[in-house]
Amino acid sequence: MKKAVVLLSGGLDSATALYLAKSEGYEVYALSFDYGQRHKKEVECAVELAKIAGVKEHVTIKTNMDAWGGSALTDKEIEVPQGDLKSESIPVTYVPARNMIFLAYAASYAEVKGAQDIFIGVSEVDYSGYVDCRKEFIEGMENAINLGTVCAVEQGKKIKIRAPFINMKKSEEILLGTKLGLNYGNTWTCYNGDEEACGVCDSCKLRLKAFEEAGFKDPIHYKNK
Amino acid sequence: MKKAVVLLSGGLDSATALYLAKSEGYEVYALSFDYGQRHKKEVECAVELAKIAGVKEHVTIKTNMDAWGGSALTDKEIEVPQGDLKSESIPVTYVPARNMIFLAYAASYAEVKGAQDIFIGVSEVDYSGYVDCRKEFIEGMENAINLGTVCAVEQGKKIKIRAPFINMKKSEEILLGTKLGLNYGNTWTCYNGDEEACGVCDSCKLRLKAFEEAGFKDPIHYKNK
Repeated sequence: MKKAVVLLSGGLDSATALYLAKSEGYEVYALSFDYGQRHKKEVECAVELAKIAGVKEHVTIKTNMDAWGGSALTDKEIEVPQGDLKSESIPVTYVPARNMIFLAYAASYAEVKGAQDIFIGVSEVDYSGYVDCRKEFIEGMENAINLGTVCAVEQGKKIKIRAPFINMKKSEEILLGTKLGLNYGNTWTCYNGDEEACGVCDSCKLRLKAFEEAGFKDPIHYKNK
Repeated sequence: MKKAVVLLSGGLDSATALYLAKSEGYEVYALSFDYGQRHKKEVECAVELAKIAGVKEHVTIKTNMDAWGGSALTDKEIEVPQGDLKSESIPVTYVPARNMIFLAYAASYAEVKGAQDIFIGVSEVDYSGYVDCRKEFIEGMENAINLGTVCAVEQGKKIKIRAPFINMKKSEEILLGTKLGLNYGNTWTCYNGDEEACGVCDSCKLRLKAFEEAGFKDPIHYKNK
C-alpha cells in the first residue's frame, strides 16, 4: 500500500489535504506540531481529525519553535492583527521558516516509514503573504530532501512534496473537502487562543470569505462576525 | 557587526566551527538540540562551550525527534555499534534528515536575528556515511532557505550555509581548533550515554584516530581504548 506523510495542523487546508490523501488510497502518517502557538485548539482538532479519517499513525512533535519569537503566533508580546487582509508585506503572524521546519521533519518521518509522498496544504492564491507557501520554495525543499535522505540518494526512492492546493482558492478547497466527506466543523483556523473563533483575525477573515465564496455556511461558531 | 548562527552540538566539529566563527569576528547565535539523543552530555558541553566562547545568545531547542525512531542514537532498542568504521552502507547511528531539521531551525533563527551566515561542522571526508553531510545536500538546503525566508526573498539578504570543514579531515580540524584556542576537553563525541566516553563506538574511534593523526593527545578520558 502506498504511504504518505500528511502535515496536519488541524486547520482547513491540512484537513482537506488529509481527506484527499485518504481518497487516493494512501496509508496516512499524520504529523502535527505543538510549537508554542497560541491556538492550541488547532492541535486538538488535528488529533480528532486523524482519528476520524482513520490514519495509520499520528505523531505530534513538541518543539519550542517560539525560542526566538518573531511572530505573533508564538510571541505573546506581539498582537495578532485584526483587520485588513494583506495590509503589510510581511504579516506579523509569519513564523520564520515554519514550513521548512515542518517539511524537514516530514522528510525524516517519510524516510523511516518508507513513505514517498508528503502532503502539505499550502496555497499561493490566498496565502496571506507567506514566502514559504510559494511553489518555488516547495520545489527547492523537495530538491533538498532528495539530496539529504538515504531513500532518495542511496535507494533511488525519491520523495515528492505534494501541494495539491498550490493553485487553488480556499473556496475550491472547501468544495473539494466537502465532496470528500470532510466536516469542516472539526477544523480550526483562528489565530487567537480562545475557545471560540474570534471572527476578526486575518485567518478567520480568509476562512469566512472562502465559505461565502463556496456558498456554504461555516459550521464552526464565531464570537464576532 | 556581522552575525552568524552556529549549529553547536557540543561535539568536536561544531566546537571548531564555533571558534572559527568567533575568530572571523562574527557575533554568534549558538543553536543546540536536545532531541532525545542518548548522549545528553553533548548538550551540556554545548552550554559550556557557548559560555567559554562568549556567544551573544545560546538557544537549545527541545524536540522529540525520536518520535519515530529509526536510529541507534535516539531509539533505545537499536544498539550503538562497536567496531569497524564504515562497515555498513547506512550506519544505524544515522538520524534521518537530522541536519535538514537543524538547518531549517537555523534558518528561522537567522532570519529573526538578521544573521546571514549559518555555520555547520559537517565533513564529507570522514563523515561516517551520512548523506546529509554531503556538499550537494548543503547547497540544496541553502537554495531552499533562500526561497523560503523573507530576508532572502523580499529583502535581498541571502543566507549562506558555511560548511568550512566539508573538505577537511578531522585531524586538520583539530589542528585548526587548537590554533584558535579551543580546548577539546570541553567537547563530547561518544554516542553512548555514559559519563565517560566509551572509546569503542564509531564516533569515539573516528575521534581517536583523528587525534592520533594530528599528533595530539585527546584531553578527554576514555573507559576503553
